[in-house]
Amino acid sequence: MPKISEERKAERREQILAGARSCFAEHGYEGATVARLESAIGLSRGAIFNYFPSKEALFVELAVRDSARMSELWRNEGLEAVVREVLELDPAWLGVNLELIRRVRTDADFHDRIEARQQELVVVNRERLEEAQRAGEFRDDLEPKEIGAFVNLVLNGLALQRASGDEPPPAELVLRLLGDAIGGEARPGTRPRTPS
Amino acid sequence: MPKISEERKAERREQILAGARSCFAEHGYEGATVARLESAIGLSRGAIFNYFPSKEALFVELAVRDSARMSELWRNEGLEAVVREVLELDPAWLGVNLELIRRVRTDADFHDRIEARQQELVVVNRERLEEAQRAGEFRDDLEPKEIGAFVNLVLNGLALQRASGDEPPPAELVLRLLGDAIGGEARPGTRPRTPS
Repeated sequence: MPKISEERKAERREQILAGARSCFAEHGYEGATVARLESAIGLSRGAIFNYFPSKEALFVELAVRDSARMSELWRNEGLEAVVREVLELDPAWLGVNLELIRRVRTDADFHDRIEARQQELVVVNRERLEEAQRAGEFRDDLEPKEIGAFVNLVLNGLALQRASGDEPPPAELVLRLLGDAIGGEARPGTRPRTPS
Repeated sequence: MPKISEERKAERREQILAGARSCFAEHGYEGATVARLESAIGLSRGAIFNYFPSKEALFVELAVRDSARMSELWRNEGLEAVVREVLELDPAWLGVNLELIRRVRTDADFHDRIEARQQELVVVNRERLEEAQRAGEFRDDLEPKEIGAFVNLVLNGLALQRASGDEPPPAELVLRLLGDAIGGEARPGTRPRTPS
């Protein structure tokens, strides 16, 4: 029954990823030993590493899925939904991503493995940006990549503040100022129409 | 000769801090073992820990000095100088700060020790913000703390991008969009005066 087997495989992958995510969040990346991963996932190391070759592969899959989910959210519901989502992500999990920043910067292979998996998203996001700009959602005196870079900056800042446990600014403030920075003239939130 | 002795002590402290900073940057916080700190600083562990009780104390002192320098830069030269400075900080050192984010979030004592040291800066920065707002440098339809929160967000985002080794957006773009978000009407960079 290859059909059922594939479904079971997929379920098992999800089980492994969910357990790994909570284990990383609880203990940090370094603290997530193989024994702790086994216990959080409820499977033996043999079973886990049958699906993912290494702890690193688990992390990369989780990180890439986050990016994909953010991209989808942005395309389906807009920037506001993305900002609100970052404000609701688990600070402990965000912290795991920061824990690996040194590795991303110093280990070129690791960096390239993650980037290769996200290449497709970069293209999709760029297209969505161009479309939004044409529709007047974003100002038209900047390149789409400039708008994208500033949005990324703000989202990264939010992620960093949340990972540190600091109270981030409220979504309304972030969205209002982000709108004033990059919004198009048609956007209701832009400054000229905001009474001062 | 107590005068000379105090001067020597101060010099020694600077020597220790400079060595610790480069050791942390090179090996990461966890990787900066006592043996590596001794070698980078050029002093024995006994001498080092005579000045700073722990590796953690070394890190906290360095982090607090960074904040103080940024605050001073902002007061003396303005926000543009701060943005340019963050764009020039050593990515490896920025990464050490992120490596400790988990600790800041989960270790309340550690969090409080850092925050206590920065309390004074929070007051100074707030005063500077209010002054700049009164002078028309920042928009007047937001609370100073709201403006400060957004500036922090952008600076944190820059720090995160640099720590990951990514190319951050150019200073001119960041300053222009930041100006459009929070600048006062008198500020030359604000959007209404920027040809689109």
